[in-house]
Amino acid sequence: MKVGSWMDDPSILVNGQPSHQVNLKDRGFFYGDGIFRTLLAVNGQPIQWALHYEKISFDCKALGIPCPEQSQLLAEVLQTAPLYPRAAIKVVITRGEGPRGYGPPLSVKPTRVVMCEPLPKREIPLEGITVRKCEIRVSEQPLLAGIKHLNRLENILARAEWRDPAIHEGLMLDQALNVISGTMSNLFIIEGHHLLTPDLSRTGVAGVTRERVIGLSEQLDLKISVDQLSFDRVASADAIFVVNSLIGCWPVGQLEEKRFPAHEKVVKIKALLGRDDA
Amino acid sequence: MKVGSWMDDPSILVNGQPSHQVNLKDRGFFYGDGIFRTLLAVNGQPIQWALHYEKISFDCKALGIPCPEQSQLLAEVLQTAPLYPRAAIKVVITRGEGPRGYGPPLSVKPTRVVMCEPLPKREIPLEGITVRKCEIRVSEQPLLAGIKHLNRLENILARAEWRDPAIHEGLMLDQALNVISGTMSNLFIIEGHHLLTPDLSRTGVAGVTRERVIGLSEQLDLKISVDQLSFDRVASADAIFVVNSLIGCWPVGQLEEKRFPAHEKVVKIKALLGRDDA
Repeated sequence: MKVGSWMDDPSILVNGQPSHQVNLKDRGFFYGDGIFRTLLAVNGQPIQWALHYEKISFDCKALGIPCPEQSQLLAEVLQTAPLYPRAAIKVVITRGEGPRGYGPPLSVKPTRVVMCEPLPKREIPLEGITVRKCEIRVSEQPLLAGIKHLNRLENILARAEWRDPAIHEGLMLDQALNVISGTMSNLFIIEGHHLLTPDLSRTGVAGVTRERVIGLSEQLDLKISVDQLSFDRVASADAIFVVNSLIGCWPVGQLEEKRFPAHEKVVKIKALLGRDDA
Repeated sequence: MKVGSWMDDPSILVNGQPSHQVNLKDRGFFYGDGIFRTLLAVNGQPIQWALHYEKISFDCKALGIPCPEQSQLLAEVLQTAPLYPRAAIKVVITRGEGPRGYGPPLSVKPTRVVMCEPLPKREIPLEGITVRKCEIRVSEQPLLAGIKHLNRLENILARAEWRDPAIHEGLMLDQALNVISGTMSNLFIIEGHHLLTPDLSRTGVAGVTRERVIGLSEQLDLKISVDQLSFDRVASADAIFVVNSLIGCWPVGQLEEKRFPAHEKVVKIKALLGRDDA
């Protein structure tokens, strides 16, 4: 057994200790019984930490997992973040170890993982990204909607639908053909003076950057709506963009065959998000 | 770091080596990107191995995970099984390690886990088990239906609905109020000379014992149907029973307020399954 190779690697902390492994009987491994969030850190400082912790806390509560204290988690994020000037930090909280069987143990000792990686360099074309319509139709489970839990097979199946590196993202639709999100991002469209984003009360993941964009709508002089958005409506919008904490805002230049010119409001949203993340 | 405590424990093999840990970056941990099956072993011999391997192989193929060779997996099962006279063997296959992100890696090196535990002693009442109706309504994803994948949050939420140890199992219904299964078992009902089990083409897990019972119908002089079964129809049946590879057949004595007397065909099914598993 090789242990020396990672014992000194400080990029991953499991319950506060450097480690590259988790116990097999962790319910995260056996059942996906946990949650995660991914955030950006710049020069050692996590961006929008308060919003991320709020989501982590909300998601844990939704699954009945005791959430680690903010101070403890933040200390671990701050310990790993300085490894790279621009870092992708992944925080995972699971229900911890338990005996075989679905029933949650009476006494839960959550597992917490903080992992720091260099932010991947992803140059996107000036004219915006190219997006496809995924074939999978996502399922609906109101009890899990919005939560970034560890049951992500639908995202994997969606992302496995294409290999062409010229396609940057895929849109996931529900069975009623409403667009829910990208495979790894939340979606917004602009129609005139309206900013719209899909309702995530029955499926999907509600990201921190989605909330930030919703919060920006007023200063952008856009009226925000959270609603069901059919694919046809999305394809007919004046502008489309996708967001997450690592990419910020990616304007969509092409969705299937349809092209979208640059839109001043999207340029502004991208700038506003980027400014706060600098 | 304590390693000595488990280095010599032969009850869990990870890729053929005794270990209690998996790499954190295993996609099983990050996304539930894998499958599992649980089987019974008696005096060192796995019961219905061929059927279990067939399911493991089918499930891997459905997720695009290369399935380990049968001979390799069987050798590992046979290595752990003799630890207990009656053992519960869990086999997990994941897509292995990969970089962050949902996209499956181009080159997949699956992780395989074989875990052996003593079969839990679960005495059930002579009059049959007590079953409740769960409140969760399970989601539908035809691409994952039938597969015993590692995304099991719905089973966890269902099983977390009750703590009363007098209740042995809960029925999971879909949004149309059709019964899909128990939280950890497949379901059958008897109506006259008909044996019925829920259609699992849109959700649920298709277990090995379910297939065995379907195969027994002819010699039991019962006409088998796989169909949508409403809760009301289940509650009005002559008899109900649930099955899985560890429990065999559990006759249902009570579903919510309704009681069910013993039924000769269920007694016979229980005996037939038990005889083959001895």
